[in-house]
Amino acid sequence: MVNSMEETLATMDIKLPPAVTPFGAYVPAVRTGNLLFVSGMLPTVGHEPKFLGRIGQELSVEQGCAAAHAAALNVLAVARQQLGSLDRVSRVARLGVYIAVAGDRLDLVKIADAASELLRDVFGEEKVSARLVFGVASLPFGVPVELEAIFEVV
Amino acid sequence: MVNSMEETLATMDIKLPPAVTPFGAYVPAVRTGNLLFVSGMLPTVGHEPKFLGRIGQELSVEQGCAAAHAAALNVLAVARQQLGSLDRVSRVARLGVYIAVAGDRLDLVKIADAASELLRDVFGEEKVSARLVFGVASLPFGVPVELEAIFEVV
Amino acid sequence: MVNSMEETLATMDIKLPPAVTPFGAYVPAVRTGNLLFVSGMLPTVGHEPKFLGRIGQELSVEQGCAAAHAAALNVLAVARQQLGSLDRVSRVARLGVYIAVAGDRLDLVKIADAASELLRDVFGEEKVSARLVFGVASLPFGVPVELEAIFEVV
Repeated sequence: MVNSMEETLATMDIKLPPAVTPFGAYVPAVRTGNLLFVSGMLPTVGHEPKFLGRIGQELSVEQGCAAAHAAALNVLAVARQQLGSLDRVSRVARLGVYIAVAGDRLDLVKIADAASELLRDVFGEEKVSARLVFGVASLPFGVPVELEAIFEVV
Repeated sequence: MVNSMEETLATMDIKLPPAVTPFGAYVPAVRTGNLLFVSGMLPTVGHEPKFLGRIGQELSVEQGCAAAHAAALNVLAVARQQLGSLDRVSRVARLGVYIAVAGDRLDLVKIADAASELLRDVFGEEKVSARLVFGVASLPFGVPVELEAIFEVV
Repeated sequence: MVNSMEETLATMDIKLPPAVTPFGAYVPAVRTGNLLFVSGMLPTVGHEPKFLGRIGQELSVEQGCAAAHAAALNVLAVARQQLGSLDRVSRVARLGVYIAVAGDRLDLVKIADAASELLRDVFGEEKVSARLVFGVASLPFGVPVELEAIFEVV
């Protein structure tokens, strides 16, 4: 018998934060058909940034990984709020990872993996997503990482 | 009885520009199933940029808001051209807002809201989208804002 | 009678490279319903970058076009691997083109067209995609172009 994702979260000792309310004129997520489009999620607790700065300048790659993990928790929190339960996620279809950088040749893949690995550990290897990663010039509020997920849901 | 969106546009005294033709080897929008993917729309009138420069350098946040509004009109114009009528939009599923910036910590949310609020005023509060916002290094032709919309349509 | 896309590739004297395996904790593509989300594809041969640098600094616009073409071959290779045959692509729904730049006002459209024109030549004029193009601060491994495709498939 397959454990539910809610049980997996408990086993991993992960307690999701409350879903972050929007910072502007948008909604946290939109479901259309079997797709759930989640808005860009940041490494914040509520509206409070947990990390500020760019990777390669104020922040290290390791701090970028921690920021990606924090943003991924917010992705999960919104998905659970929208769906009632993470067990209704049949696949993580796509994950976009946008990283505020100074200079190039940084380890963007490592930072993105910090988010992807959390999602993989929660949902399982068979629900791993397609992915897009790049470095951007600036993110809202000066945070270092933004994540955008599209879930396939039932 | 619900007003049609075309009536709403008239009430708001908004006259949509002609749909912008592509600048390259792409089409303005693609419908697949109940989704309409609209190509990146810029603050242009036809192929003529209305704003040039980056926010935080040549242009202010307020000019960024005006540019986002202009680009949103082009999104609406393409959607109407593709669908025949904006009344066939059942939801704005996702809005991507990409802003050319110089420096960080700019008010990206405010600029994005200028586009989102126009769409909300046209389509109504219950059709508000999920959203992604970040600052980019450069946009086509040197404009300050690009918008990408996915509509759920009937 | 319509030629198959596999025949078209042969006529164009294009031999697709092996599909690139992921660089991290993601999969090359995810199919959900009639959509195939392909992960960000780079101008690499396997895991080896064919181009390094930013357009406008180490690389010219012409080199950017060659890099976009190389990345588009990787998009095609992954789509064929996932679908068995490119003939199962009924439409290129959306193409995202992300270009690492130094300075602004570069010819981003020309670089993006190098990818779009290859897809158009393979799939035909009636399957041309919607498109998003912008300049980013940095791409994985320091390559100059990343492509992200969504295909409508049967």
